[in-house]
Amino acid sequence: MKALGPIPPEYTAKDGELAIGGRPASALVREAGGTPLFVYSRDMLAQRMGKLRKAMPERINIHYAMKANPYGPLLEFMADLVDGLDIASAGELDLAREAGYLPREISFAGPGKRDSELFAAIRAGVTLNLESGNEADRALQMGKELGVSPRLAIRVNPSFELRGSGMKMGGGAKPFGIDADRVPALARKIVDAGATWRGFHIYSGSQALDAEAIIEAQGHVLDLAAQLASEAGVDVPHLNMGGGFGIPYFDKDERLDISAIGAALQARFGDLPDVLKDTQFAIELGRYLVGEAGVYLAEIVDRKVSHGTTYLVTDGGLHHQLAASGNFGTVVRRNYPVAIATRFDAEPEEEVYVVGCLCTPLDRLADAAHLPRAEVGDLVAVFCAGAYGASASPAQFLGQGPAREMLV
Amino acid sequence: MKALGPIPPEYTAKDGELAIGGRPASALVREAGGTPLFVYSRDMLAQRMGKLRKAMPERINIHYAMKANPYGPLLEFMADLVDGLDIASAGELDLAREAGYLPREISFAGPGKRDSELFAAIRAGVTLNLESGNEADRALQMGKELGVSPRLAIRVNPSFELRGSGMKMGGGAKPFGIDADRVPALARKIVDAGATWRGFHIYSGSQALDAEAIIEAQGHVLDLAAQLASEAGVDVPHLNMGGGFGIPYFDKDERLDISAIGAALQARFGDLPDVLKDTQFAIELGRYLVGEAGVYLAEIVDRKVSHGTTYLVTDGGLHHQLAASGNFGTVVRRNYPVAIATRFDAEPEEEVYVVGCLCTPLDRLADAAHLPRAEVGDLVAVFCAGAYGASASPAQFLGQGPAREMLV
Repeated sequence: MKALGPIPPEYTAKDGELAIGGRPASALVREAGGTPLFVYSRDMLAQRMGKLRKAMPERINIHYAMKANPYGPLLEFMADLVDGLDIASAGELDLAREAGYLPREISFAGPGKRDSELFAAIRAGVTLNLESGNEADRALQMGKELGVSPRLAIRVNPSFELRGSGMKMGGGAKPFGIDADRVPALARKIVDAGATWRGFHIYSGSQALDAEAIIEAQGHVLDLAAQLASEAGVDVPHLNMGGGFGIPYFDKDERLDISAIGAALQARFGDLPDVLKDTQFAIELGRYLVGEAGVYLAEIVDRKVSHGTTYLVTDGGLHHQLAASGNFGTVVRRNYPVAIATRFDAEPEEEVYVVGCLCTPLDRLADAAHLPRAEVGDLVAVFCAGAYGASASPAQFLGQGPAREMLV
Repeated sequence: MKALGPIPPEYTAKDGELAIGGRPASALVREAGGTPLFVYSRDMLAQRMGKLRKAMPERINIHYAMKANPYGPLLEFMADLVDGLDIASAGELDLAREAGYLPREISFAGPGKRDSELFAAIRAGVTLNLESGNEADRALQMGKELGVSPRLAIRVNPSFELRGSGMKMGGGAKPFGIDADRVPALARKIVDAGATWRGFHIYSGSQALDAEAIIEAQGHVLDLAAQLASEAGVDVPHLNMGGGFGIPYFDKDERLDISAIGAALQARFGDLPDVLKDTQFAIELGRYLVGEAGVYLAEIVDRKVSHGTTYLVTDGGLHHQLAASGNFGTVVRRNYPVAIATRFDAEPEEEVYVVGCLCTPLDRLADAAHLPRAEVGDLVAVFCAGAYGASASPAQFLGQGPAREMLV
């Protein structure tokens, strides 16, 4: 038996079934027209933001990193909840504009921005988080050609990393951002060139569950921003302090203590160096805002026993749930939280392997899971499906196509 | 320095550039309208099939497993070269029909076939490789409802595996196929029900480079098919012996010796048991037929140095090349064959990291590669991109969208 990840406590049973937004899973599937289906809950999105606002200092803005989930209705819903949006491509810029975000609320980071993307962003008035000297030169040149003052910030490659993060984005050589020692000269150059100087973006890691590690990294970010600004002799209108707030995916993962982070930030804000006194601070979160608000539902199309092992074969799979299958950024596969959605209040009574419909042994949704007895026609739920699910999976693999999605 | 995988020897330089189908990479990019771009070579597809036909006994059919690459023009081109097509979903069935394949040439395997997919396949007259007793029952019932005799084969879960294969599809409990000991009773049931009995599908692994291992597995397949047919008292009109023929992706990978496989098969075919005397044999290949015929081209949009490490940042990435990035079915990432396409005959002179444009440290195309000096605007080529590239990658990730594709 292998443990399953923790189901977010907000999910409860209704009429014996997993309820999302107060409605049973099977009713949602009927409304959507079938499986596989991603369901995202407005209530959970709003609750998560509410708790976060309460825990964080008022002074800090909360940005949504839309790479976590670009589904249109969700993006629109988030627009009323957050203070800004972080994008990673011109494609995301288009989606953001359609969802009603204003260019002034949007910043664009990414190490490989094409000329066409820089052009679209500058023309729209989006803030660019510059990733290299070359990119700065191109942006300044385009600003001139367009006759506008581009909104420019520098993404710094910090010398520290976020301890315990799922993905390290700082500490040593990186393709992201500009090494800290080169930043002051570039900041000076940008200001002198007449661009609209927006400050710094310092991202040191993602998916951390240890509040102390995040507090430490945020402290380093504030110190580094102050130091770089002082060296450059520039102010810091805006400081994107990055994200890194993780969610529990796996057994024994502990929930992040955001109140500790908020208290530490509040203390630091009470004792800021002069150069940061007027700075607008922001944190940039993707997974933390939307991850647990989403559930992936797939139908069991076969139940089979092979050499004594029971397989529940679903009509979903890694083409929608690459990370849950263990094939994206993980070395050792562990089980996400998974349940039988149509028997959500039943006791576990057997060990099963839940797999997808693809003809590859990589297509695993839960290994050796202890679950209630399920039959063909039952629904399987994979939790933590709100972030890096639909858009981070190879939907066209084996001719399957994308899953349905709905916001409830 | 980390070694790169071996570039297929068919690729040569023309005017200093990588040539594909006799034309320089930059000319292909201009014709396609930009990068990132997958280019597939008709010549290489035809050559590969020619060599394979020559090496294999005349008696064996060669099927294309379209999951490897479902690009329409390539699929059409392959239709004239192969004897059959293997599909894995109703979505692939649609693409196959559009490309001109006849239903009689098509077989459909996959552990999670939905009712709608069984229905579409039976109505079209496609052979189903049945993966469970439940699926057999559903197929027989649908045949009755439709008033047709469904074409049914049994996919066997063999007790042996293909040694050294990249993905093991046999040996112990598996979600694929039906355990060998249950096959005779089911075969009898299918024949007695009046279905059109098509025989067996026995697939024991994929991506093997050791001819001896494939010869051994094929021997086991023939033995097992004969044994199952004798036990069931049925004939074997068709035997899909699976695939498993690998291609060299990584340094020190040795090219598969297909002549040894062909000779061993020929010897076996000369000494078949009675029950297989009239059998039509087939091998099912995907990657081996198309993998090396494809190249992925991306443009360098930035060249940057961070803490002494040089990064070539391209406009491509793992959203088109998930496997090459090391995030699909591999535990330890190794370099695929990669080159600077626009300086294909230049000597390597520096160590660089080639990365994609995505804002994640997972987006790596080549680590510590020894390559000619390249600048912004140069093209990077990733080889072995003809299989499990475009369709097996999360194209929508970070709002990027699919790559261009062309057949030359």
